[in-house]
Order: sequence, then C-alpha cells, then structure tokens
Amino acid sequence: MYNQTAYEMGDNRCAIRELAEYGAARRQIVGKENVYDFTIGNPSLPAPPEITQAIQDILQDMGALAAHSYTSAPGDLAARTAIAEDLNNRYGTSITPKELFLGCGASAELCAVFRALAVPNGELLAIAPYFSEYEPFAQSAGCVLKVIPPDVPNFQIRLDAVENAITENTLGIIINSPNNPSGVVYTRSTLEQLGALLSRKAEQYGHPIYIIADEPYRELAYDGVEVPFIPTIYKDTIVCYSYSKSLSLPGERIGYIYVPRDATDGEALYTAVAGAARGYGHICAPSLWQYVIARCAHLKPDLTEYDRNRKALYEGLRDMGYEVAKPDGAFYLFVKVPGSDAELFCKRAMEKDLLVVPGDSFGCPGYVRLCYCVSYEQIEKCLPIFRSLL
Amino acid sequence: MYNQTAYEMGDNRCAIRELAEYGAARRQIVGKENVYDFTIGNPSLPAPPEITQAIQDILQDMGALAAHSYTSAPGDLAARTAIAEDLNNRYGTSITPKELFLGCGASAELCAVFRALAVPNGELLAIAPYFSEYEPFAQSAGCVLKVIPPDVPNFQIRLDAVENAITENTLGIIINSPNNPSGVVYTRSTLEQLGALLSRKAEQYGHPIYIIADEPYRELAYDGVEVPFIPTIYKDTIVCYSYSKSLSLPGERIGYIYVPRDATDGEALYTAVAGAARGYGHICAPSLWQYVIARCAHLKPDLTEYDRNRKALYEGLRDMGYEVAKPDGAFYLFVKVPGSDAELFCKRAMEKDLLVVPGDSFGCPGYVRLCYCVSYEQIEKCLPIFRSLL
Repeated sequence: MYNQTAYEMGDNRCAIRELAEYGAARRQIVGKENVYDFTIGNPSLPAPPEITQAIQDILQDMGALAAHSYTSAPGDLAARTAIAEDLNNRYGTSITPKELFLGCGASAELCAVFRALAVPNGELLAIAPYFSEYEPFAQSAGCVLKVIPPDVPNFQIRLDAVENAITENTLGIIINSPNNPSGVVYTRSTLEQLGALLSRKAEQYGHPIYIIADEPYRELAYDGVEVPFIPTIYKDTIVCYSYSKSLSLPGERIGYIYVPRDATDGEALYTAVAGAARGYGHICAPSLWQYVIARCAHLKPDLTEYDRNRKALYEGLRDMGYEVAKPDGAFYLFVKVPGSDAELFCKRAMEKDLLVVPGDSFGCPGYVRLCYCVSYEQIEKCLPIFRSLL
Repeated sequence: MYNQTAYEMGDNRCAIRELAEYGAARRQIVGKENVYDFTIGNPSLPAPPEITQAIQDILQDMGALAAHSYTSAPGDLAARTAIAEDLNNRYGTSITPKELFLGCGASAELCAVFRALAVPNGELLAIAPYFSEYEPFAQSAGCVLKVIPPDVPNFQIRLDAVENAITENTLGIIINSPNNPSGVVYTRSTLEQLGALLSRKAEQYGHPIYIIADEPYRELAYDGVEVPFIPTIYKDTIVCYSYSKSLSLPGERIGYIYVPRDATDGEALYTAVAGAARGYGHICAPSLWQYVIARCAHLKPDLTEYDRNRKALYEGLRDMGYEVAKPDGAFYLFVKVPGSDAELFCKRAMEKDLLVVPGDSFGCPGYVRLCYCVSYEQIEKCLPIFRSLL
C-alpha cells in the first residue's frame, strides 16, 4: 500500500542523471580523460572567488548562530533587497522585496508555482524541446502538461500551435530561455507575439494565462544577444530563477520566485505560492546561501571558457555537416542526428565513450543534446568521434 | 484562477512563525532584552566549532567546483555512509547507505514520505499535541490527518484511542519523540505497546501500518533518559531526521530519510519516497551541507545550557503552581494555563512582552508551549511575569 505514481517517478528515473551516473562509473574504469561526457548541466567553471570569500566573511561577521538560523519563509530581507536592486538596475523595473520569495532552486520553485496555479483540469503548456522534469512537477501539482511541437529548425515558438493548444483550462505556459536543451534564446519579437497571443486568449476565456519563466540560464548568453526580461513584455509573468548555473552553485539549491504585484491576482498568487511551498515542506531556502546572495546578487559569470567551447563545438560540428540549432545561450548544443534515430545514435556514441542525451527526453526525437560545460581538451578530442558517427 | 487550498495555506500562516515575527518587530521597539520570546524552536546554541571548520576544510580541500556541484538525488555516498556508521555504532543496527536518502530537513522529508504513502482515502494519525505543520503536509500529499487526543497529563500515547482510530485506510502514524511541543520522550514501554498494536492491526487489515518517526529532537534528551531507536522496536518504521536542532543548523535544511529495506515493501517504498521528492522538486540536499555531514555525522550537541534553562524554568513554574509535563527532551515545556483558555493567556502574556504559543496550535487547547532555547537571563526575568499571570 503505497503511492504508485510516486513509485513510478522514482523507478523511471531522469534519463539524464542515469546517463551521468553511467559516465561517472565509466570514468572509474577507463580513466576520466577517456570519457567524453556531455550529459549533465553541471557547470565546469567554479563559483566566482567572491562566493568563497562571502562564506568566510559571513561566518566571521555573523557567527554560526545567526548564519544558520531560520529565516522567514519568503527569505532574508537583505537578500531579497539585493536581488530586487540588481534586477531594477538591469531592467529598469521597480521590483520590491515583497514580490520575491527565495526558493531551493528552480525545480522546487516551479513545483510551488505549478501547485499554486493548479485547479481541476488545469493545463500547463511546455514548448518542445523542454526540460523533461516538467512532467513529474506538473503531475505532482495536479496539472496536465501539454506539449507544443518544436519549431524546427530554429527552435523559436510555433505560435499557431500555441494558439491551437490553449483552452479554457490553460493556466499558463512555461518559457525557458535561454533554452535547455536547444541553447536557443527566444527573441524579443517571439516573446512580444507570444504575449499578444496570450493577452488575446486570456481576454477570450476571461481569466489570466500566465507565463512561467524558468530562468536558470538568464545570465548565460553570448555575442551580446538580448535575453528579454519577460515581465517587462507580458505582465502576467512569474519568474523562477536559480543561481545554479550563473554562479555555479547547482548543488546548493538557491534561487527566487518573482510574482509581480501588478500581475493579475498578483498578491493572491504570491500568497498561494508561499502556501504551496509550505505544503511541500519549504521552511526557508538554505540560510547561509541566502546571506551569500545578499552579498553576491550582482555577480555575473565570466563566460569566456563556455564561449570558447561553444564556438569550437558548434563550428566543428556544423563544418563536418551536422545541423545544429544556433546556440546563443545556456551551455547546450542541440544537434540533429543523421538518420533521425537519436536513441540509436546515442548508443553508437556510448560505445565510443561519448555520452550525449537523446532529444526524446526533451520531447524532440531526432536530436541529441550536448552539454559543453566540459574541458576544452574534451571538445577537441570528441570531434573526430562525431565525424566517425556521421 | 489559482489554487484556493494553496492560497489558504499561504494566508493562514503558521501561528508560531507569526508570533516569532511579532517578537522580532517588538524587539526593534522596546529593545531585545525586554521581549521574552519563547515562541520559535531556533536553537540558541551555535553550531559546534567543528562545523565551521568543516566548511573551511571542504572549500579548501574540494574547491568550489566540486563542493557546490550536484550530487545524486539520494545524496553523497560518503555522507550516507557516515550517517549509517553513526547509527550502527549507537543502535547496533546494520543500516546501509542505500537505505538513506538525504533530504532538505524533516519538513520536506515528511512531505515526501506522506506523498509516497498516499493512496485514495489514506489516513495518517498524529498524536496530540503535535507539530501543526503536519496538517498542510498531509493535505498537500493527499492524505487525511486524524488526531489522537492527548494523554493528559503525562503526554504518552493513548493506545485505546489509537486502536479506535485505525481503519482499513490507515497508512501510518506519526511519532515525534522527544516531542514538540510537550518535551516528553515516549518510553520504550509505550513504543513497544504501540508496535504490538500496530502489528496486530496491520495483520487484521492485511497491509502495513507504518510508523513515521519525525526525529529532529533525537539528540536532545536529558538526565540520561532513553530515546529508543524505533526501527529496532517496530520494523515498519520510516525515520525522518534533521540536523536542525542537534547541530544547530535549522536554516540550512539538511537531514535524512531512513527507509529500512526489511520494512514491508521497503525497497519499493524507498523508490516511492525518491519519486515523491522528485515530484516536489528535490534535486539534491544542499551539497556543501552534505559534505559537512560526511565529516560531522558523529557530532553530538553539548546540552549543558539547554539543561540549565530547562531545570530553572520547569522548577520555577512548577514551584509557583503551574502544571507542567515532565520535560525529558527537546527544548520545549508544555504548561497548563490557569482557567484553561490558552489563547487568552497568550494575549495577557503578550501585553507583558512575554511570547508563548497556545496549545491550540498543536491540537491541545488549555496549554501553552514554551521554547526555552533562550538566554538564562531571559528565564530568570520571565518567572515573575509568569507569577503575575497566575
């Protein structure tokens, strides 16, 4: 007598993490320099030195008692103030701390937001390719996840398909840009058109349709490409942010939810998000990390190494004939496989100790995802293997 | 269009945290030495110095990249091994790392366990007085919480009431010992009788009835009183542990779930717990804290200061005529109020800047909870106020 859905979520594990664990085991056998592991989005750059310094300063200045005590559930006021100021400086917004809720990373934050929005038969839209964990998050929250087919080959958004998918039950649409797994950044034009469409449909159905912006990759954009701050384009936007990638803190579970007060039902929705988080066991985000963010919210990553990897891998694969989505952001490359059977391609690659994730895991068969947060040497050494797989 | 239940959970906030926030605001006005705040279980002892040292060593030895990376979802193997060894040394068990799942504190762990157990119409039993957050945790998991009336005045367990409450829908019973809010430790005899009752009822209904042991206070016991390790008494026990109180890390959200493999459906239940956690957005417990636990799982708190407070407050109140449950553990005192209207008593106390939590919040009207993790000076200064309230 136990919950069968939970059992299946535990048994049918995240394909990415299974592959990554295979890679770790394989490294033990053949040596770490001989496994080309492009599976998991674990940043390869260490956190900026200011982070380590901040930890030491906090322990010194505050002492262990204050540094590790409970904060309020929405989070330390200084941390929320620092985040609001950073956003306001960058986007000309006037966000206040009371619109921010510190969470344990984007995954936990998305779960709370989905739950806060859930009503019977409520539907959430995800745009393929999409982060596969949206499925268990939506299911646990009591929402149905509907998938919008991919906009091949540019991986923007098929607005016609979004329009067709919206019903009276649509609660919101998940926007993940820069995108995991495609590495594509949605353009301002794409987002403006999406916003106009959602406004029109919201009016038609007489209730808001929220954008839920899943934004761990906001800071990871290259060549000066713009990553629009969606709440400035579409007011009914809830942002779930994480410092996992931007400050290389993936294991530490720290981020924030921004629920604008001037979104439709904004204040009630913030309360519902807090209540949903409470019901999932949120007490507060890890306190030491809140105090680190209070001091480091303005830090931005140095992308030099990722950019070098990106260019070498993108140009290398493109020049040998692979079709690759234009990778303006995040640290992923989404590559069309020859013959269009991505699972088979991954198996053949695995035989050469090259580990990539099939696009099937992201609702987009025929592609594989490469996470290029690896050493430059690995990029150089993997290219001949990719050539042999063509 | 948002989730009304989540909204209510956010709006109808935890009474304890509201009172604690009132206390914080009040301290700003009248000075911190003039507010006698016995509301929140925030340890007043700092984490042991080994914790700060471990953080510094980890950052030095592992470097920021490794220290802050994702671990596997169940947690770092070295941390789980250290926990298993510590438990085995103390209780003569043979727990293995694969029976342990590192979680973000007991609250998140209870939520995952409740969800893993939830089946339609499934019921969980809680014994009054009980931690009020069990209600939203159970509700979010899809379980019904049924409350067993308190065993006044000793606050052990009314086995007759447990027996009457068990139905074919009973999934488990939550056992929190040392108890919040009563400070009472359930005796070995109480737990053995409970185990025998549950075994009998499980056989009667043809399915397991689990004990869910909520154990943040395991290490906080005084005068050498025994805190039995429940899995050695009743095999169908799932333990949710937290280092919040024992290592004074309440804000950091680190603990573990122990699902014995030889519990009924033990292996499947572990998988369901992992799946439930995944569906609530668990990626891993905060990684730096996992590595701290790998080095510090054997540390035990120095209870000298709590014990001094406990004795002074218990004896002081008892001698002036209050009826107080025998406080063998945790850092709470549960006090019967004169006239039996606890809400009124709390209001009158509040006028004197003495903050205590009404037992109504714990399913036990007529009592108030005092958290004595405060300075000894506060204990001394509050006693005349208690006398004036008699």
